Amino acid sequence: MPSISKKGQLMPQSPIRKLVPFAEKAYKQGKTVYHLNIGQPDIKTPQVALDAVKIHSLDILAYTRSEGSEQYRQKIAKYYANNDIHVNHDDIIVTTGGSEALLFAFGSIMDVDDEIIIPEPFYANYNGFSTASGVKVVPVISKIENNFALPPIEEFEKLITPKTKGILICNPGNPTGYLYSKEEIKKLADIVKKHDLFLIADEVYREFAYDGATHYSILQEESLNDYAIVIDSVSKRYSMCGARIGCLVSKNKQVIQTALKFAQARLSPPTLAQIASEAALETPQSYFDDVIEEYVDRRNTLISELNKVEGLKVANPKGAFYCIAELPVKNSDAFAQWLLEDFDVNGETIMVAPAAGFYSTPGVGLNQIRIAYVLNKESLIKAVNILKEALKVYKD
Amino acid sequence: MPSISKKGQLMPQSPIRKLVPFAEKAYKQGKTVYHLNIGQPDIKTPQVALDAVKIHSLDILAYTRSEGSEQYRQKIAKYYANNDIHVNHDDIIVTTGGSEALLFAFGSIMDVDDEIIIPEPFYANYNGFSTASGVKVVPVISKIENNFALPPIEEFEKLITPKTKGILICNPGNPTGYLYSKEEIKKLADIVKKHDLFLIADEVYREFAYDGATHYSILQEESLNDYAIVIDSVSKRYSMCGARIGCLVSKNKQVIQTALKFAQARLSPPTLAQIASEAALETPQSYFDDVIEEYVDRRNTLISELNKVEGLKVANPKGAFYCIAELPVKNSDAFAQWLLEDFDVNGETIMVAPAAGFYSTPGVGLNQIRIAYVLNKESLIKAVNILKEALKVYKD
Repeated sequence: MPSISKKGQLMPQSPIRKLVPFAEKAYKQGKTVYHLNIGQPDIKTPQVALDAVKIHSLDILAYTRSEGSEQYRQKIAKYYANNDIHVNHDDIIVTTGGSEALLFAFGSIMDVDDEIIIPEPFYANYNGFSTASGVKVVPVISKIENNFALPPIEEFEKLITPKTKGILICNPGNPTGYLYSKEEIKKLADIVKKHDLFLIADEVYREFAYDGATHYSILQEESLNDYAIVIDSVSKRYSMCGARIGCLVSKNKQVIQTALKFAQARLSPPTLAQIASEAALETPQSYFDDVIEEYVDRRNTLISELNKVEGLKVANPKGAFYCIAELPVKNSDAFAQWLLEDFDVNGETIMVAPAAGFYSTPGVGLNQIRIAYVLNKESLIKAVNILKEALKVYKD
Repeated sequence: MPSISKKGQLMPQSPIRKLVPFAEKAYKQGKTVYHLNIGQPDIKTPQVALDAVKIHSLDILAYTRSEGSEQYRQKIAKYYANNDIHVNHDDIIVTTGGSEALLFAFGSIMDVDDEIIIPEPFYANYNGFSTASGVKVVPVISKIENNFALPPIEEFEKLITPKTKGILICNPGNPTGYLYSKEEIKKLADIVKKHDLFLIADEVYREFAYDGATHYSILQEESLNDYAIVIDSVSKRYSMCGARIGCLVSKNKQVIQTALKFAQARLSPPTLAQIASEAALETPQSYFDDVIEEYVDRRNTLISELNKVEGLKVANPKGAFYCIAELPVKNSDAFAQWLLEDFDVNGETIMVAPAAGFYSTPGVGLNQIRIAYVLNKESLIKAVNILKEALKVYKD
């Protein structure tokens, strides 16, 4: 039998998805499972987006432009302008989700064995995309004790080698909920300019900044025009994860021209989802106001409930809709599986994402989980209660 | 300014897409452009697929399973059974177009610098995916003089090195229209088994086999269970290129488990398009009968018209909806650009795909173009006339 690739063997299993078969066993046992493992909100997609595909008048579901239609990109540019980010439509390539935008960015700036510095913990699939691209993640560790603040600049500089091609941040952060300040972005800007690196920012949670804080985009930092690559997506903004529409944005023409070659090879992003995503740009501000209020409420409930759990440590998220919780267990992977297979409270259990997969440093995060607060408050309260009861009886 | 990757620099421009800016200039000049460059059929998408997304009752456009829903995969397995191909739903991973299925296959079986043998000319984007994956295409040359038949087996064996991981065919072939016989598939089966290689077959044009010929899938060859990986797509079958739904099929469990890790990293294929694609499986046989009859008619018209053009050589396609034509020009790339920029017949011109990009051997195919016969007969006749008139006056 021919053998699979080394890359394929090294490819990590997504900690967000790998326990799905155990969740299905739990369903078959008749259990209710609260899904805290995945950033799939229960928030309704804006009606204007759902309706747009219902009234389509297509005879032929045809390819679009590889970079997305000019009309859609012009509307995206307008959305950015409303967020005080000034780009042209031709600085934008529409992609199949933020995932593909990341793959295009990695492919455009890095070759095999090149290095990218990422504050850790980070969105788990960065590990997968790095392995798929043959590049090396160099983590700079941020700590739960510091609420996952950006490590000092010296920590970054220590890690820069001739192989380093960029720094990647997620802002607001998945899985930490950390929101970078304008000053932190300016510090990162200084490093990348000094060392001639790209700065990639995954800003898919832009709107999800709480407690009066304002998101500051790397594209608002004009001196970064040659350096900044933004990864974006409609998934979380409009609760339309299944659309698989995102974009890559850069003022660096070479980056755009290169990413376009990757985009042309795969022909086009999905057409129906682009129709829905273009319509989603008409979503009224009241939708976001309600959604943000709801998430703040959920976060407050979740954190306050978690803080009541004996032996649990949690950082307070300032954005996005995740938090990292440190548990009094040795191996959260085994614990998460056990929750699905062997535990329930009145027929109900929870699914969480073991956090080790959100680190690239081996052995770190083994006692942590990521919780997505994408469920309503009542469910979150029940879910934390299940966690509390589980920790009372679990032995590892 | 930080520099882009070597890979990004090497990444070829798609010959199918790269002239788009010149086509847009032609539109702005008020010209009508007949698009023979891209396999975007003018055939209507089955109504049942278009309707399915109009009547959706989704509140939340959510992620699906990374591998596609079990229900959809079971229906795909039934479609294969109807085509005398016997697979289970868990041999199938739903992908974002055939493009992503190819990327997953490449990632699962090849590392950087590994080699894959492909009969040349081949679908141009295989070059792009190879560059993106850092693998090397080793071409085995098929010739227009032989109607692009499979080269003798000895030609393949000469090219096998310790780095060779597989053979990739497209059947029926894009851009040649070549349909492999059962005997040819059996010969390929013998080579891959003897040398322990994977055999990847891009079978997205399965239904498009003409003149009474029957398509023979590599999955029908039972001895290939450990070796065969099929790339498939709804794009051409149901004229829904914009759906971006395809699949990877293999009886090799390791391949499926590995491809699933790549699939989980990108979360899920597009949800709306899966709804349309699942519904498309209900398309009545009469739709295909009509479509095939239409394509045979178009092919007959196109080839007969092309054969009237002085100095043009063309192979007769037995499947798919492309042909390669050899022109009395030195550089079809420049010719194709000139057709858009500087030529018209009564305000009409054509866009073709220069064929050099369908080869990996440098300098081959420079005087060839690929023509997609995805337009109605009247348009094809006009288009060939434009080509004929253009060749009379063009100087290179």
